[in-house]
Amino acid sequence: MISVAEAEKRIAAAFSPIDTEIMDIAHLAGRVLAEDAVAADDQPPYPVSAMDGFAVQMADGAAPRRLIGSAPAGHPFAGTVGPGEAVRIFTGGIVPQGADAIVIQENAAADGVMVSFEASACAPHHIRAAGMDFKKGDLLAPQGKRLTARDCALLAAADIARAKVRRRPRIAIISIGDELSRPGEERKPGGIVASSGYGLYPMIQAWGGAPCDYGILPDTQAEIATLADVEGDMIVTMGGASVGDHDLVRQALGTVDFALEFWKVAVRPGKPLIFGKLGKTPLLGLPGNPVSTLVCAVLFVKPAIAAMLGMPHETQVLTAKLAGDVPANGVRQNYMRAKLVRRDGEVWAEAFATQDSSMLSVLARADALIVRPPQAPAAKAGERVDVIPLDGY
Amino acid sequence: MISVAEAEKRIAAAFSPIDTEIMDIAHLAGRVLAEDAVAADDQPPYPVSAMDGFAVQMADGAAPRRLIGSAPAGHPFAGTVGPGEAVRIFTGGIVPQGADAIVIQENAAADGVMVSFEASACAPHHIRAAGMDFKKGDLLAPQGKRLTARDCALLAAADIARAKVRRRPRIAIISIGDELSRPGEERKPGGIVASSGYGLYPMIQAWGGAPCDYGILPDTQAEIATLADVEGDMIVTMGGASVGDHDLVRQALGTVDFALEFWKVAVRPGKPLIFGKLGKTPLLGLPGNPVSTLVCAVLFVKPAIAAMLGMPHETQVLTAKLAGDVPANGVRQNYMRAKLVRRDGEVWAEAFATQDSSMLSVLARADALIVRPPQAPAAKAGERVDVIPLDGY
Repeated sequence: MISVAEAEKRIAAAFSPIDTEIMDIAHLAGRVLAEDAVAADDQPPYPVSAMDGFAVQMADGAAPRRLIGSAPAGHPFAGTVGPGEAVRIFTGGIVPQGADAIVIQENAAADGVMVSFEASACAPHHIRAAGMDFKKGDLLAPQGKRLTARDCALLAAADIARAKVRRRPRIAIISIGDELSRPGEERKPGGIVASSGYGLYPMIQAWGGAPCDYGILPDTQAEIATLADVEGDMIVTMGGASVGDHDLVRQALGTVDFALEFWKVAVRPGKPLIFGKLGKTPLLGLPGNPVSTLVCAVLFVKPAIAAMLGMPHETQVLTAKLAGDVPANGVRQNYMRAKLVRRDGEVWAEAFATQDSSMLSVLARADALIVRPPQAPAAKAGERVDVIPLDGY
Repeated sequence: MISVAEAEKRIAAAFSPIDTEIMDIAHLAGRVLAEDAVAADDQPPYPVSAMDGFAVQMADGAAPRRLIGSAPAGHPFAGTVGPGEAVRIFTGGIVPQGADAIVIQENAAADGVMVSFEASACAPHHIRAAGMDFKKGDLLAPQGKRLTARDCALLAAADIARAKVRRRPRIAIISIGDELSRPGEERKPGGIVASSGYGLYPMIQAWGGAPCDYGILPDTQAEIATLADVEGDMIVTMGGASVGDHDLVRQALGTVDFALEFWKVAVRPGKPLIFGKLGKTPLLGLPGNPVSTLVCAVLFVKPAIAAMLGMPHETQVLTAKLAGDVPANGVRQNYMRAKLVRRDGEVWAEAFATQDSSMLSVLARADALIVRPPQAPAAKAGERVDVIPLDGY
C-alpha cells in the first residue's frame, strides 16, 4: 500500500505532454497553451484618448482654441495640433501629432469654431500612452496555462488569431460489473444502475480532457481482457470488485500485455486502486463505490490529465476551520465530504455525519473534501484543516 | 444615473424563465433543472454489503458456519441464511434473507466448506440499509439548480435517464465600432482589434448561455438599426462610443422599435450602459472599453442569463482583507481588479496599481474584483472588503 502523494507522483510521471493542434481564437477558452503567447505589438498601438473631449497643447493654458478637425476612434486626424488649436476627440481616438493633453467635454464650451475651458481642466492624464496595456515582446500568457475567457480577450487584443494548444487527451472510461445497467434500461435481477461514469464524464471535460464512454463490461476475464482494444491516451475503469476488490481486473489484465505499477493506495474512500500500462496506454482502475470512484478521480485522474496538457499541476488546497470535532484518523489518508460555510470572514468546513463511500447524495451536497492525513489525531472544532474545494464539478 | 443594485434588479425583472427541453443524463452536466429531480426508489434498493466477506446471523456468536452459497454484486443468493450458516458476499452484493451481519474476509478463515472467526468480528455495521443513500420521494436536486458532475452521478444512481432543463438562452453579441477589425484581419488605419467579444463569448458559455457572434457593425445609424433583425433571447452590444458614449446606439435604436429602460449606471468601470427592449427582445448595451465591457458583463449579463435559466441568482460575494491601502471612492460603485493571496489561513486582496479600463492585461491577471461602494472612505491594509471572485472565466 503506497501513500496518496507517492501514487500521485507515480501517476503524473507516467504521462508527458501530448501532441498539439492549432486553434482559432474563437475556440481557445479552456484550452492549454503549448507555447508562450507573446505580444507582437504595443497595445494601444498609438497614444489614444481615454475620454470624449478635445486634444490640445498644455502650454497654451486657458487661451481659447480654434477647432481644426476631429478624431473619432478609427478615423485619425491627419494633421498636427499647433498652438491655439484643438481637435475634437473621442474615447479610443488617436491623439493627433502635437497634442499633449485632453480636455474632457464636460469641462469645455465649444461653438463649432472655438473651444474654451479653465487652465486647470487641461491635463495630460487622459491620454493612454502607446503600450500602456502591454508592450511588444510582453508575455501575455505562458505555455501550460489554461486560458480563461479574459485571457482570450487579451490575446485577441494582441491580434493573436490562433494559437498552438495541447490536443484534449482522450480518456476512455469503462464501468465493470455484472450488476450494472444504464439509467432507463431494464434493471438486472438484484442489480443497480451504473452511476459513476455519468459523473466522471463531465469531470473529465471540466478538467480539459475528451472522455469516450465505452459503456459497461461484465465481470468476466474474457470481457475485461477486451480493454486491450480500447483506444485513447488513458483508460479509466470503474469497479470490477464483485469478486474481490479489483482482483478480477488484475487477473484479466494479466492475460494481456499489462505492466502493473501499483494497486493499493492508502486512501479513503478508495484503496483498491490499480495503475499500470496496458500496452503503451496508461490504465487507472478506480474503485467501484461511486464516492470512491469520483474522489479518487479528483485525486488521480485530474493530475494525469494536467500532465498530458503540460500544465503545472498542483491540487488546489485551501485551509478552513473545522465547524465540529472530527475523530482520529486511521492509516489511510481520508478525504471527508464537507460543507463550506462563510461566517465572520472565515471559511468553516463542516464534515457530513455520514461518510459512507456509497453515498452519492452526500458527495453531491459537498462543497469540499477535508484532508485528514494518516494517523492524524482527533481534531477539535475551530482547528484549521486543509480542504480541497469541489468547485465547478 | 441609477445604482448597480437598481440596474441589476431592473435587468433581472425584464427576464423570466425560458422554455424547456428534455435532455439525456449523459448531457445534463451544466444544465439547469426545470423541475425537481425526485427519487422514484430507495438507493440502495435492498440491503447490500459494504465489504467483501461473509453474511451470517449475529446470534450464533463465534460458532463456525457452514458455507451455503455466494452473493456477488448482481448475483443475489436465492435462499435464506439460517443459524450456523454463512454466505460468501462481496461489496455491493445483496444481503441474503436471514443474515444480519457481515464478517469481513480479513477477519475470517474459510476452507470452502466452513468459515470461522472471533465473535467480535461479527458486526452489523457493514450492511448498507435499503434507502441509506436516498429514499423514494427524496429531493435529489431542486428546480433551478445548475447540475454538477456529482449531481449527474446522483441522478443516474436514481435511474433518472433524462430530465427537463431550461433551454440555453441564445445571447447575440455584437461589437460596434469603425475602428474594429477581427484578429488576423488587416488592421484599419488607426484601428484596433476587437477583443471584448472573444472574452464575452466563453463567459456566456460558462454562465449557461448559448452565445451567437454577430460580428462587428460600423458606427452608422443605418447599420446599428439592423440590430432589429437579430434573433435571440437577448442582444448584447459592445461599444458604439466613438461619437459620444452610446449616443449613437441610442439614436440609432430610436429609429426602430426600441423602448429605453435606462442608460447610465453608477458603476466603474462602465457608466454608459444602455438597457431596454428592441421589439420584444431585451437589449443590453455594454460600454466599449474592454475591461468595462467584461466587468459589466459579470455584473449584468450573468444575472440576466440566470433569470432566463430560472436560477436563484446571487452574485457570489466573499470577503477578504486588503493587502494595501485603497483611496476613497467617488460616486460610482467601483470594481477594482485584484489578486487574491492566501496567507495564514486568510484571504488577502491586493488591488492592482493601475485600474485603467482599457487594460485587459490587468483583468486577465486578476483573481477577483474588490467592491468599493459609492462614497466609501479610504480603507487601510487589513480592513475587510467584499470581493467577487472571477473563478472559471
